[in-house]
Amino acid sequence: MIRETIVTTSDAQGKPHIAPMGIHVEEPELVFAPFRPSGTLDNLLNNRCAAINYTDDVRVFAGCITGRHDWPLCRTERIEGFRLKECQTHCEVQIVRVEDDEVRPRLYGCVIYQTTHSPFLGFNRAQSAVIEAAILVSRLHLLPWEKIVREFEHLKIAVEKTAGDREKEAWEWLTAAVAAHRRQQSANTS
Amino acid sequence: MIRETIVTTSDAQGKPHIAPMGIHVEEPELVFAPFRPSGTLDNLLNNRCAAINYTDDVRVFAGCITGRHDWPLCRTERIEGFRLKECQTHCEVQIVRVEDDEVRPRLYGCVIYQTTHSPFLGFNRAQSAVIEAAILVSRLHLLPWEKIVREFEHLKIAVEKTAGDREKEAWEWLTAAVAAHRRQQSANTS
Repeated sequence: MIRETIVTTSDAQGKPHIAPMGIHVEEPELVFAPFRPSGTLDNLLNNRCAAINYTDDVRVFAGCITGRHDWPLCRTERIEGFRLKECQTHCEVQIVRVEDDEVRPRLYGCVIYQTTHSPFLGFNRAQSAVIEAAILVSRLHLLPWEKIVREFEHLKIAVEKTAGDREKEAWEWLTAAVAAHRRQQSANTS
Repeated sequence: MIRETIVTTSDAQGKPHIAPMGIHVEEPELVFAPFRPSGTLDNLLNNRCAAINYTDDVRVFAGCITGRHDWPLCRTERIEGFRLKECQTHCEVQIVRVEDDEVRPRLYGCVIYQTTHSPFLGFNRAQSAVIEAAILVSRLHLLPWEKIVREFEHLKIAVEKTAGDREKEAWEWLTAAVAAHRRQQSANTS
């Protein structure tokens, strides 16, 4: 099972790094499987710990994908590092094993601390649509334009029907990124 | 904003009724907007209270849509009724106002109690896909067959990539319901 989360790590200078990441649940371990190159990977290999933030604020996902990296953080409890200040739950993970790979290493983590800050309040179809759209935006250069347009048209339906303010803001960031990509493409071919 | 939840109500004899329902968040109220006819509506009008269950166990959504209504319940705290035994959070709601309508009445509720039982552990794309598929299955008779097939093919990708056991089970129930619908359609036209 893969959970879409926000991972916070620190670099060698102690500077925080915030990145959306799918975490593979392989009980009792959690597995990070970042594609190289990855700032999160460098940090995980360097100091062997991370916080995994479970948040339903989809602006953090859409924001990180569109260059908005500045989200409120606070110090972690058991590891040297940071977590998202606003999240439903966060856990702190120690890396216990690394399977190296040139393309996609796997880093196995054990949860050494977990706490809940605010309640889960149900599924929201717009949140799910933003997550799907954020994944598309992270792969814009790999996807045919027609597929991007088709998928955004489809995802837009759930956003229009069910979004709150946060989801609308996240959606705007993503659609702006798609428009910028299109302009860039046109500029390159003209 | 609309949240996809499981609503538990009781009928005049005190028998519990479990139903997936989109809840409209209109702070500080939560609005139920069921289409007639609706068992939940009858119960809400009769005893003016409900529990809203926020669960990420998508089997409850897929189950209720496919005839599996028997989920473990326990008594509520502040209202006369029941809640899902397994859920991340539940709240208990008193109906304070009803806007009647022949098609889709709106019932405004105030949260009088809310508590969290287990943590939110992040988005899972397969869970979102099951929610979308459950909505499709609840509308099978209104949708063209080609649309159903196309959407299920698309949603299947996230299920295959990210599902855990619960999501796989829910997905199987939904695909079986689609197959049964198709057989029924063929029987009707032959």
